[in-house]
Amino acid sequence: MVVKVRRTSGSGASVAVEAESGALGREALLKAALDTFVRQGFHGTSMRDIAARAGASISATYYYFPSKVDLLKTIMTGVTEDLIAAMEAARDRAGPAPADRLAAIVRAHVRLHTERQAEAFVGNSELRSLDAEDRAEMVALRDRAGAVLKGVIAEGLAAGVFTCPHPGEAALAILTMCTAVASWFRPEGEAAPAEVADRYADLALAMLGFPGRA
Amino acid sequence: MVVKVRRTSGSGASVAVEAESGALGREALLKAALDTFVRQGFHGTSMRDIAARAGASISATYYYFPSKVDLLKTIMTGVTEDLIAAMEAARDRAGPAPADRLAAIVRAHVRLHTERQAEAFVGNSELRSLDAEDRAEMVALRDRAGAVLKGVIAEGLAAGVFTCPHPGEAALAILTMCTAVASWFRPEGEAAPAEVADRYADLALAMLGFPGRA
Repeated sequence: MVVKVRRTSGSGASVAVEAESGALGREALLKAALDTFVRQGFHGTSMRDIAARAGASISATYYYFPSKVDLLKTIMTGVTEDLIAAMEAARDRAGPAPADRLAAIVRAHVRLHTERQAEAFVGNSELRSLDAEDRAEMVALRDRAGAVLKGVIAEGLAAGVFTCPHPGEAALAILTMCTAVASWFRPEGEAAPAEVADRYADLALAMLGFPGRA
Repeated sequence: MVVKVRRTSGSGASVAVEAESGALGREALLKAALDTFVRQGFHGTSMRDIAARAGASISATYYYFPSKVDLLKTIMTGVTEDLIAAMEAARDRAGPAPADRLAAIVRAHVRLHTERQAEAFVGNSELRSLDAEDRAEMVALRDRAGAVLKGVIAEGLAAGVFTCPHPGEAALAILTMCTAVASWFRPEGEAAPAEVADRYADLALAMLGFPGRA
């Protein structure tokens, strides 16, 4: 709203400043919502809690996000879209061999879950807090992430390099074990994210019956 | 308290009746707490919500569980102790071969997570809601469950039947993929619990580099 008013003033510089501060305000609210959802759960959090944590007014909070569920949806959608993009980019960079493509997808999945632990936790624990329509949209978005993995498993089976008799369960097992990295990974632990990602790629390939390491 | 009063009456029969109704009341409160935590989260749930759902009075609720966190701890401890017992019993029934023991543990883990989905969800989403001391106790209890699996992986590595170079990650991957069954399993789905459990046992063995099926 502020940005719109300033736009009518015709001052390019002030539009840029306000737009930037708007983006920052929005990011600060998303960050505050994420922190509060992690600590108190969605149902235990009020818009007032989020505004207070972001150092924002209630009216500014409602301006950016008409409801608490909009904050939750934005968080969940954002991390899932980033996950899909990361998996697809990793797959496409890996070349044509199914084992390389699978390893790249698993590494990208694990890396993202070592970096965005809070969003992953909220994504898993608060799916219940969306209404049926929003939940269906989120499940469909996650299915797209699953489809990236399943597509490469299908390529490997078709090429005869994967031999797993239960590709459906293998895909679910890989997706969930990689997602769970967000729940146990600690930056101060023995293995760095890239090393964990490599080990998980090996485990996933072994599960699919691929002989050796990609 | 009711039981105690009746005990002083010296009537064995009425003690038994009251004790039974006490156990039922306790179970009803645990069930109500579980249902409410699943729907609203721990922080979004009040003792009044739990009492209302159980059809109990507030005073009876506080009699059995001095605080909301006692209900949460009882739920989380109960399912984890049952998980450990199920894994240990399955392992011990499976005989001496590490692959058989591992497959039995995985099957028991998966089976429990197809049966107790709500408790598994609350266990994962509400660990944050325990204070530091209770959380440490719960983590230690879960570590005991993990140790059952890790022990058998170590047996298999020592015997040379497992060849996985990352047994630590493999154990975490197996535990988390089996736990996640609680989040996606649907009784009306294509595979019955026993079939899912068998497939997961195969996947776990493949991950550990075991050739063939236990």
